[in-house]
Amino acid sequence: MKRAEIIAVGTEILMGQITNSNATFLSRELAELGVYVYFHTVVGDNPARLREVIEIAEARSDLLIFTGGLGPTPDDITKQILAEHLGKDLVIDEPHLKKISDYFTISKRPMTENNKLQALVIQGSAVLKNDFGFAAGMFLTSGRSSYMLLPGPPSEMKPMFKEYARPLIAASMNGDSIHLESRILHFFGIGESKLANDLADLIEQQTNPTLATYASDNEVEIRLTASARTQDEALQLLDNLEAEILCRDGEFVYGYGDTTLADVAISKLLLHHITIAAAESLTAGLFQAELGDRPGISEIFRGGMVTYHTDIKEKLLGVSHDVIKREGVVSAACAKEMAEQIRLKCEAQMGISFTGVAGPESLEGHPPGTVFIGLSVAGYATETHLFTFGRDRNHNRYRAVKQGFQLINRFLEEKLPKSADKNAR
Amino acid sequence: MKRAEIIAVGTEILMGQITNSNATFLSRELAELGVYVYFHTVVGDNPARLREVIEIAEARSDLLIFTGGLGPTPDDITKQILAEHLGKDLVIDEPHLKKISDYFTISKRPMTENNKLQALVIQGSAVLKNDFGFAAGMFLTSGRSSYMLLPGPPSEMKPMFKEYARPLIAASMNGDSIHLESRILHFFGIGESKLANDLADLIEQQTNPTLATYASDNEVEIRLTASARTQDEALQLLDNLEAEILCRDGEFVYGYGDTTLADVAISKLLLHHITIAAAESLTAGLFQAELGDRPGISEIFRGGMVTYHTDIKEKLLGVSHDVIKREGVVSAACAKEMAEQIRLKCEAQMGISFTGVAGPESLEGHPPGTVFIGLSVAGYATETHLFTFGRDRNHNRYRAVKQGFQLINRFLEEKLPKSADKNAR
Repeated sequence: MKRAEIIAVGTEILMGQITNSNATFLSRELAELGVYVYFHTVVGDNPARLREVIEIAEARSDLLIFTGGLGPTPDDITKQILAEHLGKDLVIDEPHLKKISDYFTISKRPMTENNKLQALVIQGSAVLKNDFGFAAGMFLTSGRSSYMLLPGPPSEMKPMFKEYARPLIAASMNGDSIHLESRILHFFGIGESKLANDLADLIEQQTNPTLATYASDNEVEIRLTASARTQDEALQLLDNLEAEILCRDGEFVYGYGDTTLADVAISKLLLHHITIAAAESLTAGLFQAELGDRPGISEIFRGGMVTYHTDIKEKLLGVSHDVIKREGVVSAACAKEMAEQIRLKCEAQMGISFTGVAGPESLEGHPPGTVFIGLSVAGYATETHLFTFGRDRNHNRYRAVKQGFQLINRFLEEKLPKSADKNAR
Repeated sequence: MKRAEIIAVGTEILMGQITNSNATFLSRELAELGVYVYFHTVVGDNPARLREVIEIAEARSDLLIFTGGLGPTPDDITKQILAEHLGKDLVIDEPHLKKISDYFTISKRPMTENNKLQALVIQGSAVLKNDFGFAAGMFLTSGRSSYMLLPGPPSEMKPMFKEYARPLIAASMNGDSIHLESRILHFFGIGESKLANDLADLIEQQTNPTLATYASDNEVEIRLTASARTQDEALQLLDNLEAEILCRDGEFVYGYGDTTLADVAISKLLLHHITIAAAESLTAGLFQAELGDRPGISEIFRGGMVTYHTDIKEKLLGVSHDVIKREGVVSAACAKEMAEQIRLKCEAQMGISFTGVAGPESLEGHPPGTVFIGLSVAGYATETHLFTFGRDRNHNRYRAVKQGFQLINRFLEEKLPKSADKNAR
């Protein structure tokens, strides 16, 4: 198996003016090819430092993939420095030179000397065509290492890689022919440490598939990656490990792949054409804004209220004076009436409500993070749920919205006939 | 002047699952501080390779900034490997441990052993607080090198850097006694190319201060950075250049530094205690959610409605049947009534409304991007404004919200007595 290193050459990346998204693209492509990427390096347009980076990379990687520094200006130095380092000459690639001069002939513009520089390639390298620019790409092997040179602009680099570079790498690897398959599982309602604890032995013993947990925004995801000689074998390895994980913490899994809690809930609502309305206090429109994010949501989203002030809850939404006086606005009773009232007022089948304390101040004696969510569905008893989150205002608001979508997910899963939406991986 | 290297630790970056955007952020911040970033490195969660990377970095850089690998799971190894490499112990940071255990007490969830791991820090390091997560940051100097450890999730890393790490780096550099001062000017309502064109000579001739434009989210910002032997001199350089810029495009500047259009508008509303309510269609709660973002907003935010469906506009909000039938919901007349009705219904001094076509479909014959915003203020004639944005659904929604805040800004600027809020840089 090859070990690759991706080396981006460009001071603009080190200045933070652009992000090294080329490395992301190439890493993903190489993972699919079964090439291990062990390092990304970014170095500026500086001959001495680039030379140093090449030497370090040769010592630890088999395949060095360079992006950037192939342009016509004096700060473009990648092929010059590498040629010098390898003791090779730069030579004109005639087909490439013809392509460049043809362009200038057709566009009736004068061709400058530095345009010709872009047709120079390292002697002995396979030339990679650039269908979207002038800089030629290169691939060569010298000593123990292989070198690939790609242009910096993603609009040139990506098509060059897919069309011309990828087949070369695949061919150079055909001894191994390893299939890599990945799968992502999304969890909500369980912390990363708890999950890691439950799966400690699987994490400890992992070899193939590998297993990694990532936490972000109150969620955890697990990525499984398997390698095998065939795709079927790799998928089978993933299925086996997934089954073991689901067996332990399956109740917290809400989806696979490129999805979110809101996506899953909204897809179900759309599929079953269940109309919805919302009454929000502490979340102040965040839940409804998330609905509004989806094209086509007007099929099911009726509308709602942001009942920030207490008297808006009472006068506009119609929560009873009695409940507010007796139980307060941070209460299950208030959440219940909010959900029911908004459902009726908006003539929806489902009404959801959010009331509680975002913080930083306490409210009615309840600390920040105290949140009640109500869910009223025509024909069912209204549910209310109490959550106690943390101290951070915006954490509490976003967390509450996620929790709302999760309650909808749960409700629909339990109350609706099972449908064939399990294959969305 | 210091030479820095940014080292991201995480196999997920090498797999192409996430992009190393942390390096972009840090590079920009360090450039502002006058620290040269010569290398970015990404390495996986692998002890041997991380050790190797540390050794290489120590040989070529003065300041090693690590991101990632500070979590509670076994594949989080950054501080463990660095401590071992430096021959230092990991010790519990008591304030940090208390913060973690407080969280679990408040949220009534059990704290697992590996949560405690996140309170471990390298002996002798300054601990950087994490206001948005559990992983403590660290800064220490040992031998010829300084080491900074930051968490991987950008939502934790960025505020930690700005709040706690940046001042430490700035202080550690005062040997050079060059004062760097930066100033950020925010523009709304002018495109980046137009602005760059207006300031072409200033951009061309820039040396000190430097001047860079950045476009994002329908806004443009200009960052000026001056260096001088004293702070006063640096500030004077900034003042001179700023005056020239304001002279040319001052009408589009809405604020300075770490602010947003919404911040500026909300601060003014709070200052003058003007109560507000909103009726939103295409924005579906985004505007109100932005209000809800601010602690203390309940002083002035009454509440509002999301009138997504037409009959909600009519039945719940009270837009007249006549207007909807004659002019449609995508109309100035509808925006006017929405703003007026929500102001009256919520007993607020200011009512704002958003109605239009988010897309991708047209509505009532209007193409996506057609947006009407109404602004009704007690004692003033109601304003309505028509905007024609682009084709992208979410672009249109976010753009509309910004435009709403800008209308509020303009209204308050024109109608309110000038106040002394000019110094908020």
